[in-house]
Parts: sequence; structure tokens; C-alpha cells
Amino acid sequence: MATQGQVITCKAAVAYEPNKPLVIEDVQVAPPQAGEVRIKILFTALCHTDAYTWSGKDPEGLFPCILGHEAAGIVESVGEGVTEVQPGDHVIPCYQAECRECKFCKSGKTNLCGKVRTATGAGVMMNDRKSRFSINGKPIYHFMGTSTFSQYTVVHDVSVAKIDPQAPLDKVCLLGCGVPTGLGAVWNTAKVEPGAIVAIFGLGTVGLAVAEGAKSAGASRIIGVDIDSKKFDVAKNFGVTEFVNPKDYDKPIQQVLVDLTDGGVDYSFECIGNVSVMRAALECCHKGWGTSVIIGVAASGQEISTRPFQLVTGRVWKGTAFGGFKSRSQVPWLVEKYMKKEIKIDEYITHNLTLGDINKAFDLMHEGGCLRCVLKMNE
Amino acid sequence: MATQGQVITCKAAVAYEPNKPLVIEDVQVAPPQAGEVRIKILFTALCHTDAYTWSGKDPEGLFPCILGHEAAGIVESVGEGVTEVQPGDHVIPCYQAECRECKFCKSGKTNLCGKVRTATGAGVMMNDRKSRFSINGKPIYHFMGTSTFSQYTVVHDVSVAKIDPQAPLDKVCLLGCGVPTGLGAVWNTAKVEPGAIVAIFGLGTVGLAVAEGAKSAGASRIIGVDIDSKKFDVAKNFGVTEFVNPKDYDKPIQQVLVDLTDGGVDYSFECIGNVSVMRAALECCHKGWGTSVIIGVAASGQEISTRPFQLVTGRVWKGTAFGGFKSRSQVPWLVEKYMKKEIKIDEYITHNLTLGDINKAFDLMHEGGCLRCVLKMNE
Ligand SMILES: NC(=O)c1ccc[n+]([C@@H]2O[C@H](COP(=O)([O-])OP(=O)(O)OC[C@H]3O[C@@H](n4cnc5c(N)ncnc54)[C@H](O)[C@@H]3O)[C@@H](O)[C@H]2O)c1
Ligand SMILES: NC(=O)c1ccc[n+]([C@@H]2O[C@H](COP(=O)([O-])OP(=O)(O)OC[C@H]3O[C@@H](n4cnc5c(N)ncnc54)[C@H](O)[C@@H]3O)[C@@H](O)[C@H]2O)c1
Ligand SMILES: [Zn+2]
Ligand SMILES: [Zn+2]
Ligand SMILES: [Zn+2]
Ligand SMILES: [Zn+2]
Repeated sequence: MATQGQVITCKAAVAYEPNKPLVIEDVQVAPPQAGEVRIKILFTALCHTDAYTWSGKDPEGLFPCILGHEAAGIVESVGEGVTEVQPGDHVIPCYQAECRECKFCKSGKTNLCGKVRTATGAGVMMNDRKSRFSINGKPIYHFMGTSTFSQYTVVHDVSVAKIDPQAPLDKVCLLGCGVPTGLGAVWNTAKVEPGAIVAIFGLGTVGLAVAEGAKSAGASRIIGVDIDSKKFDVAKNFGVTEFVNPKDYDKPIQQVLVDLTDGGVDYSFECIGNVSVMRAALECCHKGWGTSVIIGVAASGQEISTRPFQLVTGRVWKGTAFGGFKSRSQVPWLVEKYMKKEIKIDEYITHNLTLGDINKAFDLMHEGGCLRCVLKMNE
Repeated sequence: MATQGQVITCKAAVAYEPNKPLVIEDVQVAPPQAGEVRIKILFTALCHTDAYTWSGKDPEGLFPCILGHEAAGIVESVGEGVTEVQPGDHVIPCYQAECRECKFCKSGKTNLCGKVRTATGAGVMMNDRKSRFSINGKPIYHFMGTSTFSQYTVVHDVSVAKIDPQAPLDKVCLLGCGVPTGLGAVWNTAKVEPGAIVAIFGLGTVGLAVAEGAKSAGASRIIGVDIDSKKFDVAKNFGVTEFVNPKDYDKPIQQVLVDLTDGGVDYSFECIGNVSVMRAALECCHKGWGTSVIIGVAASGQEISTRPFQLVTGRVWKGTAFGGFKSRSQVPWLVEKYMKKEIKIDEYITHNLTLGDINKAFDLMHEGGCLRCVLKMNE
């Protein structure tokens, strides 16, 4: 390609400061170095983790940066030593890498690859610990190793999932974060079995994906809990069988659920990021075996707590990141499942906008009716 | 037998008030009613749960009562409908019942039988919700459904494990609580696998039984943590390979362990009952898979806490009661393992006294050198 080995100038949404509107800028994207891949991003969605860092509440947030981590695109060029993808491949950038060689990958027990974590956490690339993004020579930090709010981005090769070129990129971009997180929390982390009673706290994209996962796992009751009753109508389509609004009760929500289920649920999932709801989610679990999975990301510094007796009497407290999926190995499998109509994606997309509308897209996230907003990048 | 169907008057240690010395009294023990078993207790050991209730810190403690739950004896008589044991059988009373019919027993997921819990929690027997103990007509409460600090006690049939009559009762009495709790925490709750790195917080009887269980499970490193360095010499005999005294370090103990183990341990066990140690035990676990098991019983009202990020990044927080063992089914199996010299018991017994010395035995518990003190009952 003509651009290979060259700096590419393209449009990107730059977050200069916490809480200030993103600015669409002409950004210079350097060529990929050894072990790196430059991707032309075609579609990106917004996730609450973008909003969290943008808000300034993330103490590890670095500015100026290019946010975004739920996207799909086409490989433009690859750096030295990159063998698993080549220009023209359709890919999903993965904020959770999978190197297959580190202690984590080799353990077989976790998807939390450690290979590039020190670099992605610092907003740079491993090879020279520098950014590939700049504006007139001033570097702009990477974000989560993905930075998909740019028409071109550079990622580590261990963070690229090569997918079926037939898959519609404007849909499968969602497989970069929220949908796999919910499905995997059920399938990989909790391992919900047929007949189980499940409670889901928070019916956003993640909570609805949990519902979908629980339904496909054969759960007998899927109780959705949300303070916004409007969520229930949509939630039914994802498998939620009962709806509880904590505002309708005087007693604590954990007690409401214990009463509704003759002792508690088999599995609960926190999909909000609220530490008191995390406690309720644990405490609504059945004595002896109930397992609660934390998915929501709480504000920095906040802590969860409970009486240890809750655990001594058999409840289990867990959490999940990216639903426990090994990104490079399993995202392509999720794409196949979508192509075979075994999992939903389209139903989570409530809005379609363009990169230029990104600030409007962030506003939409705070409105009850928005699940995922997908931005078209190339215009 | 001559005593069958009769009230038996025998010696028992009565706790009249929290923190006041126990009083050896002549107690009337009524005959067993339907579904009950009267047992002649030959040997009983003391456990920290006895001391906890006796201290008055247990908000559910009822006085006057007869404490004790780690014992062995011989069935004296049985009530109507009792088929699984008969007079003369050697037995271990089990504070954790196993009815094989309730929701809990049938789940296959837990040992926390619910059949007689409401009665044992209220210090009475299920059949008439009254006590079988009295002194001159004044009822004395049962404790944990066992009350083994009496020469005779009455328990529910679902709380009696029938054991090999060849087993020495002065030893196997320990299989009523502490030793199975530690072994089972490793084998049933954590499921430690060969090569694992284990940390044990607190090297009393429970912590040492964890070490023994971890050794037999093939753990590669067993790190004992105790504020009393004298514990290490004994602990080596139970499998502890390294010793850490938190007092020797300025940094938090979780950091010490993470540094010692290149990222954290695979499994940790809290065997103290201290909520800040419970937090440390979780936080010293390896990211991605480390599992922490709470065994210690914390003072009432105390809470555990941590940042939810600890769980989202793959650590698991659990607890265990009686090591997850199904009492009636598995205590006899533990007795067999002891008879085959596959598990230790003798090594936990540091003192032998008689019932009349019970207050001295409680004093001994607060001394570093005491693991288990076994009381001979029939003199
Ligand atoms: N662990 C991971 O890997 C991972 C990945 C993606 C997202 N997340 C996190 O998951 C969480 C959910 O993401 P989302 O995109 O679905 O968010 P969302 O904002 O779309 O959904 C949250 C839902 O929770 C409801 N809610 C808010 N407070 C509530 C309360 N007190 N009780 C009941 N319901 C309440 C809201 O009405 C909303 O429907 C976020 O914290 C996000 O950062 C985690
Ligand atoms: N979950 C259950 O089913 C179950 C069953 C039996 C006992 N228990 C509980 O297990 C706990 C341990 O019982 P035990 O009989 O072994 O007790 P123990 O008192 O003999 O042992 C506790 C050990 O912890 C050490 N210790 C105290 N504070 C410490 C600290 N801050 N850091 C490190 N070490 C410290 C002490 O020096 C001692 O060696 C108790 O809380 C008991 O109630 C629970
Ligand atoms: Zn996300
Ligand atoms: Zn890796
Ligand atoms: Zn005990
Ligand atoms: Zn039962």
C-alpha cells in the first residue's frame, strides 16, 4: 500500500483534558514498529470505560489521549516480525491482549495476559515506550492499547483478533468489549448451569449480554434489577423473565431477592459499578453455593465490604474482565457465533453516528434509551 | 440398658454467664425423643468457637448453656425412628448436620444441611423445641446441637457420625471440628492442586491442618504466617516450608507475600478470625486466579473489605464451614484415614486433662504452646 512505512495523517477525536469535549483533530499516526499493527478503524462504539477515563475519575487516565476500545477495522500495515495478520485482514483490536507465552497465558486459568500491560497502562507502545500518535510533533497518549477513536491506530500484535472477512464490521465492532464481557461472565466466570436462578443488577449492554448468556445456558429464572423501569421492555428480548425495581421496595434489595427466590439466587452479576450494589449482589446469593460476579467498574478508591459470615456460609465472590475470554483466540469464535445467529449484536445498537458526532454520542450514553452507539469513522 | 428411657443425672460444665468460670454441676439429661440420640461422651476437646461464645462476644450465644462440639462417645440410647445408630455404637457428634433430604443436602453443592438449624441455633431440640438438659427443673440451653461438655448429651440423629469401633476416641474426638475444617478447606473448598503455592495465616490447629492438607495435595511451597515465631518449629512437622512473621516487616504482609512469590500465591487461607488479615489473605493472591478461603470466625459486626478491582482482576474470595465435609458421610472416612495413618491427629493434642479441669483448659487456649486440649469425661 502507498501508506505503508509512512506517517499517516487522519482524523481522530482527542481528549485534551478530563471532562472537556473531545476535539476532532488531524493526527499523525507513525508506522508500526516491530510487533505492531496499524489498523484502519472503520467503526467504533463507545463504552462506559471511555466515559470513565474521560470524566477524570480514573486516576490512571493520561491526557491528552485518544480514547476508544470497542471497534473493528482492516489491517493497513504490519511491523517487523508480525506473522499472524497481514494488510487487508479484517480485525478487532482487543484491549485485553493474548500473547500465549506469558505466565498468565500459559496458566490456562485466566485471560489477563501480562505481555504488554506495562506499556498499555502507561499509554505507550512496548517497543520504544513511546506513542505512535502525535499532533505537530507533540505526542498523544494511547488508551487501553487500542485508541479506536482514530481513523488509524497502532496496536501490539498480541492485541489483534483476525476475524471472518464476511462479518459486518459495523456490527461486530461490539465484540471488542461489552457484549463478550456479559456473555463470558456467565459462560466462563460463573459457569451458570441449566435450571439456575440468576439475578442481574443493571440492564445496560453488559447486563443484557449477561441475560442473553444466562438464557443460552438454560437458566430457569433471570431476574433483572434496574432503577430505570423503562429497561424492562427491552430486557425481555434478551431473556430477562422478571423485573425488580429497587425503588418499589422499602427493604434492602438483597432481601427482596432472597424472599422472591426462597433463599437466594444461584448466580448474581453486578453490571453497574456501584459498590453498594456489589454488596447486595453478593448477599442475595443462596447460602451454600451462591456465586456473585462483579463486572461493573467502581470509582477509584471505593471499596466493597460484607460480613465474612457471608463467605463462610458458602457464597463465592468473583469478578471478571472481558468475560474471561482469551481475546485473540475467542473473539473470532464469537464473530462466527454471530454469523450463525447464535448471539445477538444488532439489538444492542441503538444509535449510529459519525466520528464528528462523538461528543453527542457521549451525551447519549447518559440517556436511558441508549445501549450502544456506533460511529462510522471514514467520513 | 438400665438407663434407657430414664433421665440420667451426670456431670456437665455449665456456662451460666459470659466470661464467668464454667461450673461443674449435676445435670439431668432427658431421654432422647423421636429422631434423637443420647450419647455418653468419653472425650471432648476445646475449640475457639466454644471460647468465643463463652466470652459473650457471640450475639447469638444463649446462657445458661453447655458448650462443647469436638468430641467422641458411645450411643447410650436412641429415640423413636432412629435407625442409623443403636446403643453401643461409637460416634462423633457433628455440629454440622447431614440429613440427606433438605434442599442443601440434595444440592450436592454444600455441606450446610438446613434440617435442624433453627433448633440448634435456638439452643433446643427440633421435636418439641425444648432442651433435654436441666438442673432441678430449670432448663439449660444446648450449644451447636452438640453440647459435649457433659458426660451425656442428646443430639439429633442427623448430627451423629457412626465410626469404626476400633478407633481411639481420645484421639478421633478432634475430627469433630478443627482438623477436618483445615483439611477440607484445602481439599473441598480450594481444591489445591499439585505444585501450587499456598499461604496460611495463623498456625493454630486449623492452620496446621491446612498445611497438612496442602502438603498431601502436593503444594510446592507452603508459607506459614504467624505473629508468634514459636509456631514455626511445630509447623514444619505439618508441612509448612517457609515462615513469615508480619512483625519482621514494615510493609503490609500482602506485599511481603507478593514479593516472595513473584506476583502472589495460588491459594491463601485465613485461620485466625481477623478481618484485616482476611483482606491481606485475599490481596496476597496472584492476579488472574488466586483464591482465598476464609476459615476464621470474626467477631460479630466486623466486616471484610477490599477494592473490587481485586476481584475483577481474577481473585476469588470464598469461605468454608467444617471444611465442606458432609459430616455423617465423611467423618467416618476421616477416621479411616487416621487409622491408616494417612492423616495426623495425635500431633495436635498438646494437653490432656479431665472435665473437672475445664477452666484450666480454657486458660491454656490462650497460651502459644497449646493446640488442642482433650478432656477425659468419665471421672
Ligand atoms: N469488567 C469488565 O471487563 C467490563 C467491561 C465492560 C464494561 N464494564 C463495566 O460494566 C458496567 C456496565 O456497563 P454498561 O455499558 O452496561 O453500563 P450502562 O450504564 O449502560 O448500564 C448500567 C445500568 O445500571 C442501571 N443502574 C444504575 N444504578 C443502579 C442501581 N443502584 N441499581 C440498579 N440499577 C442501576 C442503569 O439504569 C443502567 O441501566 C460499567 O461499570 C462498565 O464500566 C466492565
Ligand atoms: N469455619 C469453620 O468451620 C471453623 C471451624 C473451626 C475453627 N474455626 C475458626 O478458625 C480460627 C482458628 O482456629 P484455631 O483453633 O486454629 O485458633 P488458634 O488461636 O489456635 O490459632 C490462631 C493462630 O493465629 C495467630 N495469629 C493471631 N493473630 C495473628 C495475626 N494478626 N497475623 C498472623 N497470625 C496471627 C496466633 O498466633 C495463632 O497461632 C478461629 O477463628 C476459629 O473460630 C472456623
Ligand atoms: Zn468497555
Ligand atoms: Zn500473555
Ligand atoms: Zn470448632
Ligand atoms: Zn440436610
